[in-house]
Amino acid sequence: MTLLDFDSERLSEFAAQVRADYDELKARNLKLNLTRGKPSSEQLDLADELLELPGRDDHLDADGADVRNYGNLKGIRDIRQIWAELLGLDVEHVLAGDSSSLNIMFDLISWSYAFGNNDSERPWKDEGTVKWICPVPGYDRHFTLTGQFGFEMVTVPMLEDGPDLDAVRELVKDPQVKGMWAVPVFANPTGITFSEEVARGLAGMETAAPDFRIVWDNAYVVHTLTNEFPPVHNVIRFAEEAGHPNRFWYMSSTSKITHAGSGVSFFASSKANLDWYLSIAGVRGIGPNKVNQLAHAKYFGDAEGVRAVMRKHAGVLAPKFNRVLEILDSRLGGYEVASWTRPEGGYFISLDVIDGTASRVVELAKEAGIALTGAGSSFPHKDDPNNRNIRLAPTLPPVDELEVAMDGVATCVLLAAVEKLGA
Amino acid sequence: MTLLDFDSERLSEFAAQVRADYDELKARNLKLNLTRGKPSSEQLDLADELLELPGRDDHLDADGADVRNYGNLKGIRDIRQIWAELLGLDVEHVLAGDSSSLNIMFDLISWSYAFGNNDSERPWKDEGTVKWICPVPGYDRHFTLTGQFGFEMVTVPMLEDGPDLDAVRELVKDPQVKGMWAVPVFANPTGITFSEEVARGLAGMETAAPDFRIVWDNAYVVHTLTNEFPPVHNVIRFAEEAGHPNRFWYMSSTSKITHAGSGVSFFASSKANLDWYLSIAGVRGIGPNKVNQLAHAKYFGDAEGVRAVMRKHAGVLAPKFNRVLEILDSRLGGYEVASWTRPEGGYFISLDVIDGTASRVVELAKEAGIALTGAGSSFPHKDDPNNRNIRLAPTLPPVDELEVAMDGVATCVLLAAVEKLGA
Repeated sequence: MTLLDFDSERLSEFAAQVRADYDELKARNLKLNLTRGKPSSEQLDLADELLELPGRDDHLDADGADVRNYGNLKGIRDIRQIWAELLGLDVEHVLAGDSSSLNIMFDLISWSYAFGNNDSERPWKDEGTVKWICPVPGYDRHFTLTGQFGFEMVTVPMLEDGPDLDAVRELVKDPQVKGMWAVPVFANPTGITFSEEVARGLAGMETAAPDFRIVWDNAYVVHTLTNEFPPVHNVIRFAEEAGHPNRFWYMSSTSKITHAGSGVSFFASSKANLDWYLSIAGVRGIGPNKVNQLAHAKYFGDAEGVRAVMRKHAGVLAPKFNRVLEILDSRLGGYEVASWTRPEGGYFISLDVIDGTASRVVELAKEAGIALTGAGSSFPHKDDPNNRNIRLAPTLPPVDELEVAMDGVATCVLLAAVEKLGA
Repeated sequence: MTLLDFDSERLSEFAAQVRADYDELKARNLKLNLTRGKPSSEQLDLADELLELPGRDDHLDADGADVRNYGNLKGIRDIRQIWAELLGLDVEHVLAGDSSSLNIMFDLISWSYAFGNNDSERPWKDEGTVKWICPVPGYDRHFTLTGQFGFEMVTVPMLEDGPDLDAVRELVKDPQVKGMWAVPVFANPTGITFSEEVARGLAGMETAAPDFRIVWDNAYVVHTLTNEFPPVHNVIRFAEEAGHPNRFWYMSSTSKITHAGSGVSFFASSKANLDWYLSIAGVRGIGPNKVNQLAHAKYFGDAEGVRAVMRKHAGVLAPKFNRVLEILDSRLGGYEVASWTRPEGGYFISLDVIDGTASRVVELAKEAGIALTGAGSSFPHKDDPNNRNIRLAPTLPPVDELEVAMDGVATCVLLAAVEKLGA
């Protein structure tokens, strides 16, 4: 029997109990935080070998160049080779950069805006309107980036196997639609992984804009919560085969694999796209931190070494995700006041509450000392039209804190629901 | 008696000898390179301790934050404090970034172009024309950067104590003049250090553009070739006192102090300028590589630790610079066919040959297997109006190679001169 089926007397009793629970929760004066998609200390410890790498006597890369000196905008082959193997890509299509692939995404868009990219008829700044396809819910930092440049963000729903392809195909008939965000594996925040059919569909569709690009942000490609790794699709080849070789700006990084913020990023694309990128990257700077790249190559050894590290992460993270799901199941199961994802990888659980109550849940939690990511954060301009979605980040807190916080969140979801039902 | 005073017979004899010298030079089939402003292996070895730092058990910064995790756009206090002391600046005015300050310069200009800076009436892209003051000769990468954005580069001559202030003051009456390049200490390529008077003049002058900025690229602030360090001027305070607090974007870095390309960059400015920068830097990314910053802080210890490292570099570099000067003196002295700088710091010697012959000297050297930086490289669009200037980079080659190369260059200078004199 769901909460919606309760008669008024039972609903009143239930509401009284939930309010008592909430008062008790507040009385505990908690100070807990479920907002941060950050690795825990236990995870960071896994990569502490890196703090003394590459080591004093090792400063030559696979091509014999001294990583301590200037040069090599592409990054060293040692780490590019490992990532190419991991992603099933041709090493010649893979560049290695500094710590954050977000930086590269920003630059690609910024330079398309100022100068136009290699397929542009004019700089995007001179386009009047630039539109960008945003599957929702999605990654807040993506939306902030396209918002910074004033792009009009048009949303498409995420389905079980990726973004709604029909909706995307319709949108790209507009020549002002210049690009699209995509997190193809264990997507932030839903955990959804795109099917090969969707990947091929995106590679193959015709677009009105010749300089249309999909930012293929494969941030969680190996971030499994099980012992299984999802298949990797060589979308660069898919696009080439479909006659759109420059379709994808493919991103990846060691973030949440080694140390967050001090890792290596990767940018893979067609030769024409890479040449264009390098022509401006070479004006912006001299090249990436190759010492850090060599350290990472030594730490991993090979692609299987990366997977071995990720299995250790899964060992730390799976119990946390499982506890969150157990608490959601036991506290909210059956009432039909919420639904949530059961991700097999990535960093988040996406919680949908009764329409119109997400911001109230976040507010109630805040008053009880539990910080949740702002309602709407997974939508452009932080505007969730249904006011329904909350992104939960279970990775950072220790399990005991996580249990207390999630139990509190469940109470807040129920209280917002009974308020909504007028009880 | 100078070459110009030779009578025709003596000139013919001299020319014959120079041609014989040149033929002999070519016959040696050299393959030498004087183009690269790169540190030598011997210099890089000085910082090899960094290859195993910060070390396995050290991952907290001075504020107790874990450098292995996300966060802190400003960079860690540990390294910001050292650089603030070294530059005589307030630590609150100093940010620490990733390896290259050129990246930050690019971003500052790129974001002013796309969005306008904190004092702009409109984005620079909407200005019609943007003009930029370029003291010449100067740093090629600076000019390439402003060239990338299509800025009109207006040159001012470098005098003994910095750029010609009167010329600068005249130019900034034009509201389209939005900025200026400056390398205030041991300038690339002349080695000139700005006087305090020039620094205060630049800080104090009135400019028509409210969003005018001077990129104060203090790349060589501690790069002495002696045991003396030049005085540092707190131009941020000078500007504040003069009522133009946002005048300077002050840059510095560990490049050519530790390992080139894997160091730490610094951006110092007024609070308003830093806030503006951080508001967009926080969209572009999560923050700098703090592990590397901690490694550098540990390696240096304090500001005096930086100076101690630089004395070791001077020990390696001074003999190279001295040999170049000795060869120039002995081979070219007295003929009045060339003049050259005698820098007390920095990475270059600036050689002026007879007007109209610089490109010929470079060509002759190339034919003899000696790569020189292209003539005109130290001017916007690589256009030296007098075709006179050649930038020599003595740091990378071993002394024996350097001697052979410089002796060859001297021969080429003499040959170009006698050709010019019709002999």
